[in-house]
Formats: sequence, C-alpha cells, structure tokens
Amino acid sequence: MAIGGNERAAKAALEWLSENEAASVQRLIDWLSIPSISTDPAYKVEVKRAAVWCAEQLKEAGFKEVEVCATGESGSAGGEGHPIVLAHSPGSADYKGPHVLFYGHYDVQPVDPIELWESPPFQPVIREAEKDGPGRRIVARGAVDDKGQVMMFLEALRAVRAATDKVGGGVKFTVMIEGEEESGSVNLDRFVREKRAALKDCDVCLISDTGMLARGKPAITYGVRGLAYTEVTLHGQNQDLHSGMWGGRVMNPNLAMAKVLSRLHDDQNRVTIPGFYDKVVALSPDERKAWDALKFDQGEALKKIGLPAASDWGEKGFSPLEREWARPTAEINGIWGGYTGPGAKTVIPSHSNAKVSFRLVADQDPEEITRKFFDWFTKTAAEVAPGFRAECKDLHGGLGVTLPTDSVHLQAARRAISRACGTEPALIKTGGSIPVAGLLKRELGISTIFMGFGLDDDRVHSPNEKFELECFRMGCKSHAMFMDELTRL
Amino acid sequence: MAIGGNERAAKAALEWLSENEAASVQRLIDWLSIPSISTDPAYKVEVKRAAVWCAEQLKEAGFKEVEVCATGESGSAGGEGHPIVLAHSPGSADYKGPHVLFYGHYDVQPVDPIELWESPPFQPVIREAEKDGPGRRIVARGAVDDKGQVMMFLEALRAVRAATDKVGGGVKFTVMIEGEEESGSVNLDRFVREKRAALKDCDVCLISDTGMLARGKPAITYGVRGLAYTEVTLHGQNQDLHSGMWGGRVMNPNLAMAKVLSRLHDDQNRVTIPGFYDKVVALSPDERKAWDALKFDQGEALKKIGLPAASDWGEKGFSPLEREWARPTAEINGIWGGYTGPGAKTVIPSHSNAKVSFRLVADQDPEEITRKFFDWFTKTAAEVAPGFRAECKDLHGGLGVTLPTDSVHLQAARRAISRACGTEPALIKTGGSIPVAGLLKRELGISTIFMGFGLDDDRVHSPNEKFELECFRMGCKSHAMFMDELTRL
Repeated sequence: MAIGGNERAAKAALEWLSENEAASVQRLIDWLSIPSISTDPAYKVEVKRAAVWCAEQLKEAGFKEVEVCATGESGSAGGEGHPIVLAHSPGSADYKGPHVLFYGHYDVQPVDPIELWESPPFQPVIREAEKDGPGRRIVARGAVDDKGQVMMFLEALRAVRAATDKVGGGVKFTVMIEGEEESGSVNLDRFVREKRAALKDCDVCLISDTGMLARGKPAITYGVRGLAYTEVTLHGQNQDLHSGMWGGRVMNPNLAMAKVLSRLHDDQNRVTIPGFYDKVVALSPDERKAWDALKFDQGEALKKIGLPAASDWGEKGFSPLEREWARPTAEINGIWGGYTGPGAKTVIPSHSNAKVSFRLVADQDPEEITRKFFDWFTKTAAEVAPGFRAECKDLHGGLGVTLPTDSVHLQAARRAISRACGTEPALIKTGGSIPVAGLLKRELGISTIFMGFGLDDDRVHSPNEKFELECFRMGCKSHAMFMDELTRL
Repeated sequence: MAIGGNERAAKAALEWLSENEAASVQRLIDWLSIPSISTDPAYKVEVKRAAVWCAEQLKEAGFKEVEVCATGESGSAGGEGHPIVLAHSPGSADYKGPHVLFYGHYDVQPVDPIELWESPPFQPVIREAEKDGPGRRIVARGAVDDKGQVMMFLEALRAVRAATDKVGGGVKFTVMIEGEEESGSVNLDRFVREKRAALKDCDVCLISDTGMLARGKPAITYGVRGLAYTEVTLHGQNQDLHSGMWGGRVMNPNLAMAKVLSRLHDDQNRVTIPGFYDKVVALSPDERKAWDALKFDQGEALKKIGLPAASDWGEKGFSPLEREWARPTAEINGIWGGYTGPGAKTVIPSHSNAKVSFRLVADQDPEEITRKFFDWFTKTAAEVAPGFRAECKDLHGGLGVTLPTDSVHLQAARRAISRACGTEPALIKTGGSIPVAGLLKRELGISTIFMGFGLDDDRVHSPNEKFELECFRMGCKSHAMFMDELTRL
C-alpha cells in the first residue's frame, strides 16, 4: 500500500483482517465488557477505563502521540467531564493526501429496561445466525454504537500497518474519541476550541457511527439530522393532594401535561410550534427520485418491530424515508408524574414532567428551536392550566449537517467500499444525530464522511443491542481500503 | 355515664381526657412510629407490628375478646394479606342502645416524594402553632389518616372506662381495624363474609376518617364518594427505538398516551366516557341551598396550596363543593413511560403507562365504570395509534354511600359533638372514598356515621401530613360523649 497504490499491500491488509478476525472480535469483546455509561455518574470510573483501553489500542497500532485528555468543569458526570482520547500520526514523508480527523465515541447508552436483556449488557456474547433473521452477531451494549464501529477503524489500522509497515498505511491521521456522545458531548465544544492548534489543519473528518442501507448493502451517509433535547415540568399546587378531597376542584398536572403535549402535533402530524419549519428546506425533485429508487420498505421495517402496516405514522405528504431523512420531528422521550410504583395511590401530584426532543434538518438551529418550544410550552400550559408554572430546561443540542455528494473525499470512500465489499455503496441520509459533525463544520470548517456499517434492526439504544459480524468484517475492510485510497489522492 | 345518662360520669370522662392528654399524644406517637405502609410488600412486618400494637390498646381499654386475624391469600402484599384487628365488648347487661361496629385502619400511604418531608415521616414531631397558620400539631405519615383518628376512639374508650368502670361506658361494641385501606381493602370483603356471624347483629357503623368543615367547626359526614382505580398501558412496537432512526416513522407511545388521556374530558371538563354519568343523581334544590349556606371559600382553599383563584378547575355548571361532594371525577394519579432518569436518552419507548382513577357518586358502580373506561380507552387508543395494544388492569374499587340525615344514630352523634365541642356540627359530604361503608351496607345492611376531625390542609397522602392537637382533643371528647349518647337511646 505504497503511495500511488500498491495492490499487493492492499490485498495483504485484507488477508490480515480475514486471518486475524477472531483476535479482532476478542479485542472488541474486551472493550464492550467495560460499562462506559456516560450519562450516569455512577459509572465514571468505568468510562475512564474504556478511554484508557482505547488509547492502548492506538499505541499498539503505532501511534506515538496518544493522550487521554481530561475535559472541562461542566461535564455531565457532575463537576468534571469524561476524558477524550486524542492521538496523532504524522503520516509518511511522501504522503500527499488529506489530513484525516477520525472521530468516534467509546461511551454507551444506559441499559434500562435491564429486564429485557437476554444476556447481561456488559457480558458480550456471540449469537449464531438465525434462519430468516439476523446473522452471526455480537450482543452487548455499545456493540454497534459506537465501540464496534470504532473497532473497525482500529483493526484496519493494525491491518494496514502489518501490510505496509507504516502507521495508518502512511496516512496523516488525528484521532479524537470521546466519552460523552451519549450524554450530549457537553465538553466537546470547548475541547475542540482548546485543541484548535492540533486540529486546525485537518482536511476532512471520518466518522463510523451510521448504518448501511440493508444487510449486505453498504452505504455512505451524506446527511444527519440535528437534535435539541429538553426537559419540561408543569408545577401546579405546592403539594401532592388527595384525589378524593381535591378531585374536581383543581387541574391535575398530569392531565395538564397530557393536554399540552397532545397539542404538539396537528392533524397532519406536523409540529405546531410557531416558526418550527421556518428553516426547513424542501426536498428537490432529484433527491426525492433518488430516494424513491432505494425502494425502502416501511411495511417490512414495521413488521420487524412487531407493528402492522397500519402503524405507519408521521408527517402527512412525505414518504417514510423523507420523514426520517429530510423532515424534523418532535418526540416525548420520557414522561413521568405522580405515583408510579406498585399498587394504588390516590394522589393528585404537585407536578408532572417530560423529556421532549426534536430532530432537526437543514438550517434549523437547536438553540432557536429550543427557545421556540419553550415559548410554545409556556403559552400552551397557561391556556390549559391557568396559574400553573412551566419550568423549561435545555439539556443539549447539535446542528444537522448535509455534505456535497461530489466531494473528492466522499468519492474516495465510495471507491474504498466498492473494493472492500464488491458492491457500490448507496448514498443515503440518516434520521439520527451526530452533533460533532455540525461542531467540526462550525469550528474547523471541515466536512465529514459518515462511513458506518450498522443495520436498522441493531437495537441501538435498546436492550439486546447487536453488531453482525458480516457488517464488522465489511467495515474493517472498507476502512483499510479507504486508507489505501487516501494515499492515492 | 350510667344508663339513662349520668352527667357526672360524662364530665369525669371529659376531665380524664384533659388531664391525660400528654399520655394520649405519646401513645399516638408510638403508633405513628411504626411504618405500616400497606401497598409496599417491603413493610409487611411493620404493618403486622402496627396491628399488634393496636390490639394491645383495646386490651388495655378492657376488651376481653381481641384478635389479630390473618387475612386471605390474595392480599396486596403478595400471597397473604395484612391482618385485621377484631375485638368485641358485650356491653353492660342493662344496655339497650345499638350494637356499634367501629371501623378504622392502621395502615398508611407510601411516603414519596420523601425529599419533601421536613422531618422523617415515621419520626413524629410536635410543631408549635404558626401565626395565621396551622395550630399546634403532630406531623407524621398517618397522623390524621387514620391512626390519629382511630386514636380518638381508643382514648375515649380509656376515658369512659375510667369514668364509669365499664368497658366502652357500657356500649356494645365490635371493633374492626384493618391494615389494607390504603391499598384497596382487598381482603376486607372476604373477611366480612367470613365473620358474618360476629358482625351480623351490628346496628350501625362508626368511622372516624373524615374531616371537619373548617378549623373549630366540627362536622358529621353523611356521604362519601366511591372509587374505581385502574392502571392502563399502551404497547407500541416490541422494543425501544432510537428516536433519530425512527422519529417520524412510528407513533411514540408516550405521545399516544398523552393524546388518549387528553380526550378524557370535554371542553366543559365533563368525563367523555360514554354512559359515565348514567347513574349520577342530580342535586336537589334543598341540598344545593344547604351547601351554599356553608359558604365554602374555594379561593381561600386554593391559596393555601399556592394557586391563584384562576386555577379553579372542574366540571362547568357546578360549585366547587358540588364538584367535590356530588359529581364524579377522573384523575391521572400517575403517568410514566420512556427514559425518566438523569440526563438525556433519545428513545422512543415501547410502551407508556398511566394510573387512572375515578371518584363516583350516587349509584355509580365501580365495576361498571371500570368496564366503560376500559372500553373507551381501548377504542380511543385504536383511533389515536392504530396497531397499538391497550392493556387494562382493574386495581380496586368501592361504592359511594349517602346516609339519611334523620337517622337516630346520626342525631345521637350530632348531640354528642354539640356537647363535646360546644357548637353544632355541620352536616357535610366528602369527595374522598371509604369503600368499607359501601361494603358494610351491601354485606350487613348497616349504615355508617362518619365522625371525623381532619382539616382540609392536613396534607393527607402528602409529605408532612399532620393532625392538629385541637382537632384530636375535640375528637376524643366527641367520641366519649357519643358513647354516653348511645347509652341514652
């Protein structure tokens, strides 16, 4: 894999990956065994352990400059943030390609509801392929989001080094792997600003945290949605009340919350917040046509999660794919108020709560959307429950990003995947959010290539999260070939 | 307090209560220190302890037949119920009055939200009177509901025995004090049927679990509302989903729940369940006039719980008192679904839950109302979220009861309170539910006198529950005088 391309070295890298797959998977299992839940302060030590583990991998891949960097005072873990692994490899002297910033995250989502896991979330197991079901796979929290996907990059580094004797095959890499992606990347902004000197000459970012079009159909994602995440509380009377003595004399905060949130969408399932759609860009006829050609089967997708076709739901006038990739949405991620334990308690609670988040597209700004939602919530609550007090908390947000499909870096990734998988990748978008892409665009002016190998049914953020080994394999090879393609630019 | 009335003995009983008040309060403190939370299986042993404590009091009051009776297999504590204290005193040979069944409960509500308690709920404290606020009072879970009120009866028993040397002053008493009132009295029906032989010749029931009209204004309650308590769950897809990948493609069960429950009331705040009002009886002009004369101040009541007058809410066309005493209501006692922990989780949960209860009046039957609600919920859910599954659980229910105000027993209670408190009691109703009254009417054919001394701001079922000592004092005296009045019948 010399400059200009060396087919023999490229082949050797692919062979190395095949021959060493068992060891690669074992390394992933080791990492997945560390419960690095970033949102819960109880796991702080484990999160750090996952960072140190990752830094060791980079050292073994030949990186000389590897740092586990502490992060700022306002971290999600109460007082101090989770560390960011920052590593640099200068590339070969004769390397002429782009300086690539690889970004990933080693933290994971909480595991609840824990009772629905078939095996403990941090004791990874390999399950065999099922007839007409998922293929051979590794099951654990973080299997695909994002440890498994970062591992494809780490194993590709090992492979190309074995094949070329050069760190990263000679590519100039900066690696930044954070531990707060699942809790809003609250310290990343400041970190990127503080490390601007180290990051400023990066040309392009590579992120492996997205999905394929379908099993066996790789894809490059050229757009992600933004996110605005909030928590709202409706405060009624200053104490819990007996529902017998007060029922019929005061508004129940749970009822008020239900009434307010029931107005979040109109009868077309459009979000009713004034100005919500102001900066949404209409789909171009070409884009609509290209997406229609992907023949996405919503009925099949619903079937996999146990719902009939009649359960298809979303903004009217758009296809399911358009609704996920190009339209903003509002979700009630959590709701709670009053007595929720076993048995009965005849209470009218003093307050009711909800976690409400928005997926954003095009130029929708998270702060602006959050502000507009808070205005709407406060105003609607005043209508529904006069005298009640609305409390609104902005938990975090991130910009959505869309990349030009004709970028030379994206095209290099496209060729790499073609070579590795023997099939042309689809160009798709995702409804998920990778706020770091928006941050890097804003702070460093660089674009991001999303080269991910997850599947729609990987149970991301859910019990029994999995990553299929065939996907892992395609991802390792594609990342190795991408390193080769970069040396040819 | 001999048969036919003995003013000297009556006076001696009142004096005994005054002189021994400190000891009476200390006994109450001892009882309140036992955390007898019936709905939570973790407190099973404590509940039993509270029963045994109560049985000891009855023995000390001279009752010879005192039993702590085990209750049936389907108890709320998983497999076996909490005990019922059953005691009997045959009365004097020359007693000609009614055989009185005294009913109370020694179990208490859960304490959450525990963080709002100013002192630990099971470490009772005496707080001094506040200027323009509550009087000197005992603060603890169960202070007024119902240990403190049962204690008035127990102390009256001590007083009249001291004054007359007769158990209960010579009145024929059966005492039944249960431990599952706060968790639906699930074993009481069977218990009453099993003990029919012991209970069948009771003439009237006395319950002390209600409130006064206001501070210093005693009352007899001649009607209570019924209750139907349910738990409903909306099941959507068979797993939690990532709100990015699925937001805009499936209905969120939390949103579906909010939409369904937002339809529970119409724009007149009437419950929309078909047939809900079928058996509700309209207020008579006389009743409306009598209640208006009580000059209940809803604005003042709202102010005490921190709400402006504008927060007055309920079925339109009825006064606040009418809404509480004579109209049925629907409440969302609890709601929960999705991620409710600290921080953010971008999830679309697989299901959402609510505890929904109804206060019933007149001839509304709990089972019938529950059935109608489940039909409505299932149908509305199908409209709001096609393909979702509604799961409905009937937790418990009880009939409402209204008594004739010209009953000789009620009139005896009226005279007793007049003598004890120096003021005529008001005849009122309550919006709360005491299902045992409906049960006793149905099973034994007897009516109930509700003679309670709670206040509207006693924080029943809430943090910092209290019972004012002046109320306790009036209650002890009124119960002693009632024993005297009974001997005169």
